[in-house]
Amino acid sequence: MPKAKIKKRILTGDRPTGPLHLGHYVGSLENRVKLQDKYECFFIISDYAYITDRLVETKKLNNNVKSLVLDYLSVGIDPKKSTIYVQSKIPQVAELALLFSMMVTLSRLKRNPTIKEEIKDRGISKVSYGFMGWPIIQAADILCVRADLVPVGEDQVPHIEQTREIARDFNRMFGRIFPIPEVLTGKVARLPGLDGRKMSKSLGNAINLSDSPKQIKEKINRAITDPKRIHSFDKGHPEICNIFQYYKAFNREELSEIKEKCQKGKIGCVACKEKMTKAINEFLEPIRERRNFYEKKKDIVKEILNSGNKKTEKETAKTLTLVKEKMHLDYKSLL
Amino acid sequence: MPKAKIKKRILTGDRPTGPLHLGHYVGSLENRVKLQDKYECFFIISDYAYITDRLVETKKLNNNVKSLVLDYLSVGIDPKKSTIYVQSKIPQVAELALLFSMMVTLSRLKRNPTIKEEIKDRGISKVSYGFMGWPIIQAADILCVRADLVPVGEDQVPHIEQTREIARDFNRMFGRIFPIPEVLTGKVARLPGLDGRKMSKSLGNAINLSDSPKQIKEKINRAITDPKRIHSFDKGHPEICNIFQYYKAFNREELSEIKEKCQKGKIGCVACKEKMTKAINEFLEPIRERRNFYEKKKDIVKEILNSGNKKTEKETAKTLTLVKEKMHLDYKSLL
Repeated sequence: MPKAKIKKRILTGDRPTGPLHLGHYVGSLENRVKLQDKYECFFIISDYAYITDRLVETKKLNNNVKSLVLDYLSVGIDPKKSTIYVQSKIPQVAELALLFSMMVTLSRLKRNPTIKEEIKDRGISKVSYGFMGWPIIQAADILCVRADLVPVGEDQVPHIEQTREIARDFNRMFGRIFPIPEVLTGKVARLPGLDGRKMSKSLGNAINLSDSPKQIKEKINRAITDPKRIHSFDKGHPEICNIFQYYKAFNREELSEIKEKCQKGKIGCVACKEKMTKAINEFLEPIRERRNFYEKKKDIVKEILNSGNKKTEKETAKTLTLVKEKMHLDYKSLL
Repeated sequence: MPKAKIKKRILTGDRPTGPLHLGHYVGSLENRVKLQDKYECFFIISDYAYITDRLVETKKLNNNVKSLVLDYLSVGIDPKKSTIYVQSKIPQVAELALLFSMMVTLSRLKRNPTIKEEIKDRGISKVSYGFMGWPIIQAADILCVRADLVPVGEDQVPHIEQTREIARDFNRMFGRIFPIPEVLTGKVARLPGLDGRKMSKSLGNAINLSDSPKQIKEKINRAITDPKRIHSFDKGHPEICNIFQYYKAFNREELSEIKEKCQKGKIGCVACKEKMTKAINEFLEPIRERRNFYEKKKDIVKEILNSGNKKTEKETAKTLTLVKEKMHLDYKSLL
């Protein structure tokens, strides 16, 4: 019997910092839903990453993890195809990170440009040891499930380079067990927030996947459009209008018509926003339906997470057995 | 029924770097054997510590761990009273270390004087991330079993101070679960090596607990005594003689007699060494007997280690459950 072709494995995921928004959808979730058919996907809920800079806010974790799972399921991540799991439920991640930590110099970590930037961006004044070692924990996440591909944004590429280094070093020193993971690049679509800056929960300019029709309406109404337009008959500049960007993502059918009308002053922002509100609500309709379904079936969500954790640990336990064997930490003749 | 008085718990142990020697016996093992009756002792075989600077020598680990267990058992560590376990077999150590790593700043670790000194002593040119974080791993070891007391040498006191800090910080931030471990100090007896320097495997000046009578004889014969004595009738200076130091530890009955005879030139080094060889062999006799017993019963050693690992993990799993509960990483309502 010919061996079935094994799908390549993907690892990706999110920090459970709060509800996912349309920016996440356009930037990654939409793509993930597609990847499920071609690849074996592991979606990690990275709660260790959460505590790197939110040690005093762990009370929120339970709700955040729940809402993240619901976001995943509602956009179409299919638990029959893919595995969703919680990072801290996998002891092998911490074990592997500890072993890798002996293979990476502190000075190498200090050269990681992403770490430097994040320290700046998140306004971290006192860098914790764990935060500095984040690329090692990420390497453990990726290599623990022996992922082949990691779809990441450009800012994460240096982390993945560190993972590749660790995998190569390990294979050379102890014997080949790790695939060298590749970055899965692709055109990352970006969606501006309601104020034109990057859509982000912390900037308060995001439309969440879990927002109600009423919330969507209110948010779109206060969105910044073309600041030079005062009257509905003023000629508009769609290229600098946030709402016009949303047409590109959520209402392509009317895109060229709206562009023309706006430029000629034939549609006002209020009418244009109404159209967009409708389009986003239509787009969110099946997502809301799925969310509704899963919210009511609390046991299904529980079951999905538990079986995801279990399936992941089965894989990571295999990896750790191999790692310990190669490193002579198995004590075969002793234990 | 009145609750039985609970014994305080001790954690201590060794890196499995090779056979233990008389210096270890005098400096710590003798004391550990006594501690077993008064305290609940956990003896850790710290293989993670081994790999901090011996990543390319892991092939030796299996033998080293075995010989360390035999050393423990042969000096009288009693597996019925105490628990011997292998660090890397306890996943909670790595998990707890990862969680603690978010609570300690990198600059705090850099101030640890022991780390600085060890980097110098071991001639480490490129400091690994894991080595720099060693005090955190040690804190995880100690707090994972919720030890009350840690018998350490003076050089380890800064590490224990770091452990105490972490325990206090955790208790304050998340709720009191950790005892604040105390350093168990005491007069640490020192035994010089055959050449007068500190007895140490790496200096090649050690008498191992597992040495045969023949090896002991050869080693004692080449020991440096009083360099000013040429002839057996020369007057000696016991205070600068290594062999005389050994009398203090292993032949106190003849101590004053030997001192007088040496000072008066009435006993030569050859005769004095012969006496010492005999005394050390007598001292080692019961130790050899126990070693012989355990070496033949391979299954008993296996059983001791396996049950030690199991017992330890039972304790550390309890600790981690508490830790995750307090940190809201238990996801009670979700999982």
